[in-house]
Amino acid sequence: MDQHSFVNARYASAPGSPIRELKRFSDLPGMISLAGGYPAPELMDAAGLQQIFGRFAPAEFGQALEYGGTEGAMALRVQLARLLSARGMAAEPADVLTLSGSQQGIDLLARTLLSPGDVVLVEAPTYPAALSAFRFAGASIHQVATDDEGLVIDAFEAALVRLKPKLLYTVPTFGNPSGRTLGEARRRALLELAVRHRCLVIEDDPYGDLYFDQPPPPALYSLRHAVDGADGIVTYLSSLSKTLAPGLRLGWMLGPPDVRRACVLAKQTDDMHASTLTQAAAAAYLAQGLFLEHLPRLRQAYAGRARALVRALREHLGERLRFIEPGGGMFVWARLPGVDTAQWLKSAIEHRVMFVPGAAFFAREPDPACFRLSFASQDEAGIAEGVARLAAALRAV
Amino acid sequence: MDQHSFVNARYASAPGSPIRELKRFSDLPGMISLAGGYPAPELMDAAGLQQIFGRFAPAEFGQALEYGGTEGAMALRVQLARLLSARGMAAEPADVLTLSGSQQGIDLLARTLLSPGDVVLVEAPTYPAALSAFRFAGASIHQVATDDEGLVIDAFEAALVRLKPKLLYTVPTFGNPSGRTLGEARRRALLELAVRHRCLVIEDDPYGDLYFDQPPPPALYSLRHAVDGADGIVTYLSSLSKTLAPGLRLGWMLGPPDVRRACVLAKQTDDMHASTLTQAAAAAYLAQGLFLEHLPRLRQAYAGRARALVRALREHLGERLRFIEPGGGMFVWARLPGVDTAQWLKSAIEHRVMFVPGAAFFAREPDPACFRLSFASQDEAGIAEGVARLAAALRAV
Repeated sequence: MDQHSFVNARYASAPGSPIRELKRFSDLPGMISLAGGYPAPELMDAAGLQQIFGRFAPAEFGQALEYGGTEGAMALRVQLARLLSARGMAAEPADVLTLSGSQQGIDLLARTLLSPGDVVLVEAPTYPAALSAFRFAGASIHQVATDDEGLVIDAFEAALVRLKPKLLYTVPTFGNPSGRTLGEARRRALLELAVRHRCLVIEDDPYGDLYFDQPPPPALYSLRHAVDGADGIVTYLSSLSKTLAPGLRLGWMLGPPDVRRACVLAKQTDDMHASTLTQAAAAAYLAQGLFLEHLPRLRQAYAGRARALVRALREHLGERLRFIEPGGGMFVWARLPGVDTAQWLKSAIEHRVMFVPGAAFFAREPDPACFRLSFASQDEAGIAEGVARLAAALRAV
Repeated sequence: MDQHSFVNARYASAPGSPIRELKRFSDLPGMISLAGGYPAPELMDAAGLQQIFGRFAPAEFGQALEYGGTEGAMALRVQLARLLSARGMAAEPADVLTLSGSQQGIDLLARTLLSPGDVVLVEAPTYPAALSAFRFAGASIHQVATDDEGLVIDAFEAALVRLKPKLLYTVPTFGNPSGRTLGEARRRALLELAVRHRCLVIEDDPYGDLYFDQPPPPALYSLRHAVDGADGIVTYLSSLSKTLAPGLRLGWMLGPPDVRRACVLAKQTDDMHASTLTQAAAAAYLAQGLFLEHLPRLRQAYAGRARALVRALREHLGERLRFIEPGGGMFVWARLPGVDTAQWLKSAIEHRVMFVPGAAFFAREPDPACFRLSFASQDEAGIAEGVARLAAALRAV
């Protein structure tokens, strides 16, 4: 670090996002990437979305070029509230804070809720860009153990008692990177403990719509009325990035009014509001029923890809590999005992296949034998070939 | 403030943006708003932009729906670098950090450069949302006197010596709210002093393209090579919001590499990147030469509106009113000795006309006799009628 730099210590010493920095390898010729959590371009409804732009009445299009309210365009908030109500999260349009992606929600919450030294609990493993946001806010981050069903409730309680955290960040449904889903009984127990210890819960749910066979358990946010006192302690984030298109940069937040108000203030000084144009397009897409037609196609395609990945892993990496078959989402989290996955990745890139080594997903004490695979952005043949290359790369380490 | 709130003290006690909160009055029937710095909808090239969306090749449109790099899409950065080079700011595409509006640049800089207690200098008057960003970062904000030519250099030097600020925030060209433009000699003197006292300069320039008769003096950023040592101390922000369309949420930053890198890290955890779709549309609009065709029409229209405002102010508010005729931008900053402009606004809203009272534009010691008028979003007849109503409202106070 340059001693003359104007940059403050927290940012001057920070590493970049390990996943975004892998992205440059994805352009190598013939590369099969099982790394990023990027939706498959060929599964997006680009034609449907482009028609939306063409069919806007001129006055409507013109209006979508203007400044808008920080909370978001009412037309979109109405559609999102409907979508949420269908998922069991009875919400009024006025309850929905539109975001420029759900990632922004994590950042706004970190900025408005945390003071340096505040304790934040996360799952082990967890989403790296959430760790960054909490680190930039000066938080002290501690991780809570997980098992095949997600967060271990006893470990959460012990952390609440010992660390007095201000908030818990969790991806309880088809978790990133874990692929795991917290069962309903644990969801209720989690909320009861959070109420008792006055710990705000950030429920990050970008993947809930991407279930394969059966819908996931109710969101923590929709269980908040079933647990005494939980109403004021759950903040819910979700996104159109995984289901419609990340290029729109649209997500949303539900939560206690004072928390949302603080995030509105922070967003006013940040990007003011999400693009009014992409909001208008998304609102029209939802209003015309295209989104609800699109989702089943997406679920079916991802279910097939997930099965292909599981099949290939069993075939090529055999019994040494430990992982859980996902019920939705985009990821398989796996462990190969005795393997340093960072070394394996180097060999894998030479074999033209990529994944994300596990270290980035831990707040502390990374497990180098873990890694994350995404089945979202390769077709079934690509997945099979990618896993065969992974096995070859492993033999070459 | 609720004692049980999870919101940290800085956000719990913050007021909302005074200008954005005026916006709700602008929907009252018959309201003539001279308040917001909002570009005129009827002057935007909505038809040209909508055609851009229709004419994307399907593959191109599909790609614009995907995730992109945090620094921005290369196609847009190439166009912005060309635009900047034509303005005398020789920039390579790799030097341009794309933002979700230039406001976001202020916020990213506040977050990555400031630590609580750091001193920030601003002009008196200055842009309120910059004040918010610096306050949220915990800065100690001090204001520097201005006169008809902008920042007073002696006052700047005295503040540098006395307060040892980390940075200066300035809108040197067609300032918001002042409408004033810093002359070239003062620009050089400002840079020399900033170098000597190691004070980073944030040059916010959303209005430079909106000149009426003659282009403004060179940007501070383009003078940095003309002043020894100034290369590493100027960060430049600009935007397509005032010249193309705010709904795209696109701006950009130029500046020292370490400062840009820190802002990239902060943006990664915030909105990840500006909408790839609006970036693609803006890139195409610029590449097709439509932007350079559009600007002269905009300049001419705003010049006419500015003249109409000046004429009406002289006619209806007479010699008591002190203001400077603007040479570009969107604003007239004025002073009516002995008038409490906050009271006047209440009467004005009853007369169906709006402006922004001056208090919000000061970091300290607001001058209640000052106020800001925007000539951007009303046509010439609307401006004449609006000022007539202002005069009637003043008589009714």
